[in-house]
Amino acid sequence: MPFTISKPMRFGDCDLTGIAYHPAYLSMLVDVNEAMFASFGITWQEIMFERKLGLPTVTMNLHFVKPAVYGDVLDFAVHVRAIGRSSLDLETEVRVRGDIIWTVRQRIVLTSTEDHKSRAWPDDIRAGLSRYLEPKDEA
Amino acid sequence: MPFTISKPMRFGDCDLTGIAYHPAYLSMLVDVNEAMFASFGITWQEIMFERKLGLPTVTMNLHFVKPAVYGDVLDFAVHVRAIGRSSLDLETEVRVRGDIIWTVRQRIVLTSTEDHKSRAWPDDIRAGLSRYLEPKDEA
Amino acid sequence: MPFTISKPMRFGDCDLTGIAYHPAYLSMLVDVNEAMFASFGITWQEIMFERKLGLPTVTMNLHFVKPAVYGDVLDFAVHVRAIGRSSLDLETEVRVRGDIIWTVRQRIVLTSTEDHKSRAWPDDIRAGLSRYLEPKDEA
Amino acid sequence: MPFTISKPMRFGDCDLTGIAYHPAYLSMLVDVNEAMFASFGITWQEIMFERKLGLPTVTMNLHFVKPAVYGDVLDFAVHVRAIGRSSLDLETEVRVRGDIIWTVRQRIVLTSTEDHKSRAWPDDIRAGLSRYLEPKDEA
Repeated sequence: MPFTISKPMRFGDCDLTGIAYHPAYLSMLVDVNEAMFASFGITWQEIMFERKLGLPTVTMNLHFVKPAVYGDVLDFAVHVRAIGRSSLDLETEVRVRGDIIWTVRQRIVLTSTEDHKSRAWPDDIRAGLSRYLEPKDEA
Repeated sequence: MPFTISKPMRFGDCDLTGIAYHPAYLSMLVDVNEAMFASFGITWQEIMFERKLGLPTVTMNLHFVKPAVYGDVLDFAVHVRAIGRSSLDLETEVRVRGDIIWTVRQRIVLTSTEDHKSRAWPDDIRAGLSRYLEPKDEA
Repeated sequence: MPFTISKPMRFGDCDLTGIAYHPAYLSMLVDVNEAMFASFGITWQEIMFERKLGLPTVTMNLHFVKPAVYGDVLDFAVHVRAIGRSSLDLETEVRVRGDIIWTVRQRIVLTSTEDHKSRAWPDDIRAGLSRYLEPKDEA
Repeated sequence: MPFTISKPMRFGDCDLTGIAYHPAYLSMLVDVNEAMFASFGITWQEIMFERKLGLPTVTMNLHFVKPAVYGDVLDFAVHVRAIGRSSLDLETEVRVRGDIIWTVRQRIVLTSTEDHKSRAWPDDIRAGLSRYLEPKDEA
């Protein structure tokens, strides 16, 4: 079951041709990533400030399928595809009124904000993320 | 020969952990894409407002290799890998003091801003882009 | 009675010192302005695309009283101080847990997006804005 | 003599009506403030990371006189109006082809990033800022 959340295209998210400015999509995706962690009760503030851990994205494959326009509501569905020792593979589909607008496959790696090395997922975060785990069929 | 340009990491490009906020990288990339067209004398304003054409990015594969910090100067090298009828494949490497920080492979498609359908590259734009054409060795 | 809305400080709204990046506050204010119009059933999309009107801000006086940090929830209270022929005077207070964080006095002017001249407020928009009209005591 | 610098209106600085998105102006102003300090050899990185000082803006009075459009080059002229014990009063005019587009009066206060209290300007920064000191005639 994916993590789902909806976000409107705001005035400031559009470019002068009237469609989404793609860097604004990435900013929305950061918010969506953050909201997924909050959904199982672990905030990024706690992760960053108390646990001294960071969540850098290391790869991102984006497909922009159709433009979204001002006022559209974007429905995000985030699938957790794999949870490694310190990595997290996400696949996110973004729809407007049922049509896919853009998709992204993304790998996040848990790192220490002190030595910048990777860290194993703590059990409570791993359990939270597992709620959305849905490995892709390799049929 | 790639198109090259350098851009500093600005205060506002950093996140609260002190490193680059990745949506800010995408915003820089838009500026770099724009500057490449301007380098052969064809501005995006002319393309958008006079020729009624747009340059949406349709795919983007990003690798974030190392973090950049406030004050770093990012050296962009944009290689044109292929110019199709209406598509443009770019591969960009971003370095700080010689080390690769992030890379992106990107496909742009020329479209009409009126009917949103693809258009063939006009000869003058194709000639300009060809200056940076450097197909990747498939060795 | 002011128009009220709450917005969290997002990860991307913070600067590298950990507090709000002030341009991000202005972006939030645009969203708050937009939401106030939507609250009486007139969207900015309708104003901009159907009525061919724009809502540029012409003056803004900002006071930043205390810093807000990542995770704070900002409570906005927007007072309509005056509605002129084509102008709108707003005064907005932004609080975190009851403490004022920043304030802004702002004048917006309704203009045509075709000739860029000012326009009188249409009756329905004037009626909607009047819901929040609360002239300041000049005691 | 003011500190002067020019910045182009970038694609991403425009809103969907084709003119500047005002939060983007504030982001440019941060860059201009930063460049003024760099002009006398003291970077914000040094101020923030080595000296543990911050430069929050506490008030800003903005007037947006005329819209700027994509491709315009904005010419900034920053006048230092007063340097207090820990405050700095700036007045900035922004022109396009000689016409004033927007202006801002701004107060910055030097603070410790450790206890968040104000600090007196160090002599070297005060000397640098004094280069642009030009008190306003109160005629």
